[in-house]
Amino acid sequence: MSAKLGVVAVGNALVDVLSQATDDFLATQKNKHGMEKGAMTLIDEPRAVELYSEMGPGIETSGGSAANTMAGFASFGGKGGFIGKVANDKLGQTFQHDIRAQGVTFTTTPLAIGAPTGRCLILVTPDAQRTMNTFLGASVEFTEEDIDEDLIASAQVTYLEGYLFDREQAKRAFVRAADAAHDAGSRVALSLSDPFCVDRHRDDFRKLVENHVDILFANEDEIKSLYQVKSFEEAAAAVNDKCEIAVLTRSEKGAVVLSNGEQIVVSAAPVTKVIDTTGAGDQFAAGFLYGFTEKMPLEKCGKLGAAAAAEVIGHIGPRPQMAYRDLIKKAA
Amino acid sequence: MSAKLGVVAVGNALVDVLSQATDDFLATQKNKHGMEKGAMTLIDEPRAVELYSEMGPGIETSGGSAANTMAGFASFGGKGGFIGKVANDKLGQTFQHDIRAQGVTFTTTPLAIGAPTGRCLILVTPDAQRTMNTFLGASVEFTEEDIDEDLIASAQVTYLEGYLFDREQAKRAFVRAADAAHDAGSRVALSLSDPFCVDRHRDDFRKLVENHVDILFANEDEIKSLYQVKSFEEAAAAVNDKCEIAVLTRSEKGAVVLSNGEQIVVSAAPVTKVIDTTGAGDQFAAGFLYGFTEKMPLEKCGKLGAAAAAEVIGHIGPRPQMAYRDLIKKAA
Repeated sequence: MSAKLGVVAVGNALVDVLSQATDDFLATQKNKHGMEKGAMTLIDEPRAVELYSEMGPGIETSGGSAANTMAGFASFGGKGGFIGKVANDKLGQTFQHDIRAQGVTFTTTPLAIGAPTGRCLILVTPDAQRTMNTFLGASVEFTEEDIDEDLIASAQVTYLEGYLFDREQAKRAFVRAADAAHDAGSRVALSLSDPFCVDRHRDDFRKLVENHVDILFANEDEIKSLYQVKSFEEAAAAVNDKCEIAVLTRSEKGAVVLSNGEQIVVSAAPVTKVIDTTGAGDQFAAGFLYGFTEKMPLEKCGKLGAAAAAEVIGHIGPRPQMAYRDLIKKAA
Repeated sequence: MSAKLGVVAVGNALVDVLSQATDDFLATQKNKHGMEKGAMTLIDEPRAVELYSEMGPGIETSGGSAANTMAGFASFGGKGGFIGKVANDKLGQTFQHDIRAQGVTFTTTPLAIGAPTGRCLILVTPDAQRTMNTFLGASVEFTEEDIDEDLIASAQVTYLEGYLFDREQAKRAFVRAADAAHDAGSRVALSLSDPFCVDRHRDDFRKLVENHVDILFANEDEIKSLYQVKSFEEAAAAVNDKCEIAVLTRSEKGAVVLSNGEQIVVSAAPVTKVIDTTGAGDQFAAGFLYGFTEKMPLEKCGKLGAAAAAEVIGHIGPRPQMAYRDLIKKAA
């Protein structure tokens, strides 16, 4: 069938609560609760309530790594879809409103009874680093049955969020989504999401990358964790023949795109002031995938990714605060 | 009794939903629903649901004009309190968490049954102007009984939000609050809030200013509306002998402080890029009141106001995204 959508993403459906915090606050939380600065820690509902009561004033915005990517992809002008699980509550309504209002197709049935909509409590320190604490809530009730194979078959690329790997049934859903995509002649992309997440599921991730993934997104720490090597160069050499395209992001050092033995270096786009790095990787993927689905050369795809990442780290929150289609001319 | 708090504010307890919108979208909404660009329009619950479904992705943050001022005041290091009405629901919990997490005393009993927590749907256009649509919800159930006279008596200044004048019973609560403040030897401050709000209640506002207000905050449009004059100079002359201090803000032209026949001109503080003007007046008042309660000269009070206003218009949302105490040294 002909591809009607550019990208369909599968990921956690979360609402973010972003708050500014001091390094002292993080140090106390690390001692008491094992919170790792810069990483994503899974928490349960009582801990989410406790942490919320301890943290400062918040800003609420729809989040979820792959959902953020789809918001950015749509902001570039791309047609996309998202598959993920919310509950029938206020946060679930917010998530649904925001993703649809951005122009993304979202049809997953909300969870009727049980857990509330998942949320991510994000502490932003003065160095603009974000430290995430995720209560997955309804998003863990995501199963193979939620994989809309028709939606996936209608897209050029199916994009999978690594964070979902923290649940067994979501892993099975991943394989089902990947198979549906390949059966339809589409490509499968994966984001590794977090070095600690990679650490928790290294073997499964390696298998998935080798057997099912065409386009891999990872940052430096994630790709080094996947292959348990110490340098970026070793990691790049290890991933080189494992999939069609590997997009390796390196924060202020830009990114490296590996494809067919070729290595394309992309510079980071300029930023006046880095405020909050939440969503940087998500929006890099958004720009790259928009360029890719519009058949642009890989270097151009990388430039769009860098431009979107630069926008999102200039403000609080993981989604676009401008129309990304205006970045396309600038990157030309 | 000795003043333990700097400022206690009385105002609407709202949660803001901020979204970017085009001028075309606003023009359509103006034709169909009378929405005025740059102003605050009161809406009912069905209209709030309809507008939310039509607007783009949102960012939710606690708002309410006087509550924003208290958040800024506390961020400077001031001790403050807030009186306003939320419901026992998710948005009400968010409002309570945010104001207390900022360090502001908030003890008003939430509404047990009836209307949900009020919200303000804010459309931000590319020129950074904000257009507000307020469903007052539980905040209209604010009555004289909610005026905590002990809290008011413990503060140097009681700050009243003009928007509350849209309800008769809130007007009576205002007078009660003002009387309680004066009985305790404290000052009463008022923000006019909005030129259309002034237009709806001009006579009552004039009486309040002449009989009860020591410190008046107004922007150029509001003060011109109050005295029905065409120029800023005429408005300044009209207000000059009506209260102890008048703080008249003029956007990029800075502000003018009138006191005892003296006129102090304050320049606007530099801003790299104006993103969203929501909260500019609220944070000007925060800085001014902080300086005032710390017995600083009026010029310094104005500078702190200008510095806080410059910070808040540099990002989306009406509350501080940095510690305002760091602005104090800069303004010195």
